[in-house]
Amino acid sequence: MAHIDLKNDQPGIVGLFHFNPETSRPLCELAETLLRGPSPLSSGEREIIASYVSYQNKCHFCHTSHGASAAHHFGGDLSLIDDIKNDFSRADISPKLRSLLGIAKKVHKSGREVTGDDIQQAKEAGASDQEIHDTVLIAAAFCMYNRYVDGLGTWAPEKDEAYDEMGKMMAHEGYLRERPGLDTD
Amino acid sequence: MAHIDLKNDQPGIVGLFHFNPETSRPLCELAETLLRGPSPLSSGEREIIASYVSYQNKCHFCHTSHGASAAHHFGGDLSLIDDIKNDFSRADISPKLRSLLGIAKKVHKSGREVTGDDIQQAKEAGASDQEIHDTVLIAAAFCMYNRYVDGLGTWAPEKDEAYDEMGKMMAHEGYLRERPGLDTD
Repeated sequence: MAHIDLKNDQPGIVGLFHFNPETSRPLCELAETLLRGPSPLSSGEREIIASYVSYQNKCHFCHTSHGASAAHHFGGDLSLIDDIKNDFSRADISPKLRSLLGIAKKVHKSGREVTGDDIQQAKEAGASDQEIHDTVLIAAAFCMYNRYVDGLGTWAPEKDEAYDEMGKMMAHEGYLRERPGLDTD
Repeated sequence: MAHIDLKNDQPGIVGLFHFNPETSRPLCELAETLLRGPSPLSSGEREIIASYVSYQNKCHFCHTSHGASAAHHFGGDLSLIDDIKNDFSRADISPKLRSLLGIAKKVHKSGREVTGDDIQQAKEAGASDQEIHDTVLIAAAFCMYNRYVDGLGTWAPEKDEAYDEMGKMMAHEGYLRERPGLDTD
């Protein structure tokens, strides 16, 4: 049960969106822009960064739902996503994505952890300024979403299977469909 | 100098907004809604929470600018804001705001740090569900803004005085005036 009376029984951030429609609007628009808007990174790569940071923050609802979305971008298989969560330095991903996940891991601790060497390493692996920007902002944003979801003690389904349909919708339809109280604007 | 070429010399998050107008829009709208939209907490109280969390995250640009804004809401004096940053448990504030700052401090570490006892204590000090919600989301959001600003290594003026005019504008005109590339929409 959540720490406050949300007046609905929806899980994770969905319950919070129903409780507070005013803030759900910019929060959904930010997710849509970050994960599906213009970027040199694919939506699948961006969902991987979102899921990885949420896993670092131990936010079950966010890391599992964005992991399911990432998997849907890559054909539906969760094993790559699980490999990345377990140890991205050994996962079967490009050197560029690996270096960006290294930056995201630092951002999850603190923005101040990111060094010039981290940036240089990402650039040598082929990352552009825009890709570095997008990685830092996605990682920072999920440090917000994760704290919002867990700081209010929302409930989350436990098993991966419960997130499959949600992940499919996130991957294919995005983050603007369900904005409580905002359907008519 | 920032970690990436922002193509402008604006400090802190302002430089990032100019670099990436797409994400500046939901980020500014979120700040406006959180700090100046409908809430049982005053804008001054909300700016205090924003500044306090940013101070915990050692984000100089954010804690100083939102500290200046908070001070303008309370007549222009920074001493109360400095007292809160130094030790809010001894600052001259209401028991309710003190208990909400206790929750914000936990959220800055992790959403998972917030316990049922913290919530109970805030409720006993007079906090409503909406006030607890708004506190958690402000604290979470500044964990994002702080990481965005510092993760990309933006520059920030050092002295308090440099933030006075900015704080005044934030307090009195809000967060929607300067949205690069969005003036005409």
